[in-house]
Amino acid sequence: MIIINGELGSTIHVMDRGAMYGDGVFRTMRMRDGHVKCWPQQYRKLQADCQALDILCPARSVLEQEVAQLARDAADCVVKIVVSRGEGGRGYGVPDSVSPNRVVLAAPAPNYPEHFWHEGVKLYVCEMRISHQPRLAGIKHLNRLENVLARMEWDDPSTPEGLLLDAEGWVVEGTMSNLFMRQGTVLRTPNLSACGVAGLQRERILKYAAQLNLTPEITQFSLPVLLAADEVFICNSVIGVWPVRQIGNQPIALGPIAIHMQHLLESETD
Amino acid sequence: MIIINGELGSTIHVMDRGAMYGDGVFRTMRMRDGHVKCWPQQYRKLQADCQALDILCPARSVLEQEVAQLARDAADCVVKIVVSRGEGGRGYGVPDSVSPNRVVLAAPAPNYPEHFWHEGVKLYVCEMRISHQPRLAGIKHLNRLENVLARMEWDDPSTPEGLLLDAEGWVVEGTMSNLFMRQGTVLRTPNLSACGVAGLQRERILKYAAQLNLTPEITQFSLPVLLAADEVFICNSVIGVWPVRQIGNQPIALGPIAIHMQHLLESETD
Repeated sequence: MIIINGELGSTIHVMDRGAMYGDGVFRTMRMRDGHVKCWPQQYRKLQADCQALDILCPARSVLEQEVAQLARDAADCVVKIVVSRGEGGRGYGVPDSVSPNRVVLAAPAPNYPEHFWHEGVKLYVCEMRISHQPRLAGIKHLNRLENVLARMEWDDPSTPEGLLLDAEGWVVEGTMSNLFMRQGTVLRTPNLSACGVAGLQRERILKYAAQLNLTPEITQFSLPVLLAADEVFICNSVIGVWPVRQIGNQPIALGPIAIHMQHLLESETD
Repeated sequence: MIIINGELGSTIHVMDRGAMYGDGVFRTMRMRDGHVKCWPQQYRKLQADCQALDILCPARSVLEQEVAQLARDAADCVVKIVVSRGEGGRGYGVPDSVSPNRVVLAAPAPNYPEHFWHEGVKLYVCEMRISHQPRLAGIKHLNRLENVLARMEWDDPSTPEGLLLDAEGWVVEGTMSNLFMRQGTVLRTPNLSACGVAGLQRERILKYAAQLNLTPEITQFSLPVLLAADEVFICNSVIGVWPVRQIGNQPIALGPIAIHMQHLLESETD
């Protein structure tokens, strides 16, 4: 089911600035039993990303009604919300009269093997390097060609995710996930002030770290440092947490924190 | 008039990867008397950009038929061609069965004052810095949030263009144009191997330089060096060439080459 500006539909105008320039933002969320996980925090992120691009964010109550409409049709799915700046202008300049377009849609939940959660996953190391753009860093915007091209680099279903580095060789994230590494009692995740998407689950894991007696640290680290970690895991709102058991050709030790975090994220007590 | 995959229309599917990720390319061209200027070179650029993203480029004959259909409706207009990778996949991965979507549309030619061509234009100096991404540099792709945000920085109709620098302070281009500067008999334009769009008119001007006894040079230069130039001009396929008479608050000398280039680009003898 697809709801476009409140109406059932499947198409948008070709002059939508999302379609023309990637001029918009989105969120991807998990719905289970008709309930979107972490909805208040997801809406807050959507608001913040809209604000960062000076796009008027749809009202929370409007989106809640539309998500409820999806839930009646498919209670177990992935929900995607896209907000573009709206239609207008052949050029980059934004017309005074622009009005945002919102798309709220349900897609089937991906069918990953159970062992990804219990035994961990392999990460492909992408050759594509993520560019530094502090003005857009952290935002889940629609300019995602880097992710698309990175994802095109490998095609092995047993490797569900790729690792992205920046031009200087610092670890940034996965193509669709954020990444954490543990060194003793320190839980590190890359600094995303120059590039990357600052996902909601990353934020939650940073908050939950103290409950597991871990010191969270937002910092730069290189691939060799990552490969020497005591434990590595990735996260997003669809998968939750996957332990990482291999990066490129190198095995990575499994540890207890990934599984603890799976449960904490599920608990939604934050 | 808008032609979508050969049919009159105005909408595309919301799952079009152009709309979801900016996963596509485009060209903007000038049609006069039903004739698209430099069509063979424009098609060659479209082909090259599609190839760079591994998108199947529509056949030239197909696009020519569609452009001819536009011409019967509006012989004097701006023609935009957008080619996206097609529809499919909620995630970044490209489905095996993907088939490109093409949009061919006519928009009114912009109504700039005549004196922009004769007396030159002012450039606003954008605060937004363009990011380095060698994998995408030069390509006219749909990830254009940097251009949109840069264009939002100023709102004065007497300043029709903004100057973009990279994070290191090198001059790159205008938000919608390429840039040249003359120092004596050397005609310099920025190296676009790390960022920027390598437009067709830039390529033509580099070729035509020798006819005006100028040595073309593709090279890095800073804003202070640009401000000290003997002459500066910008170009794209809609405006042709505009002399630059002011950058930020600083006046720039006008010179003869911008006007010569206007005529050479019009001649289409290349």
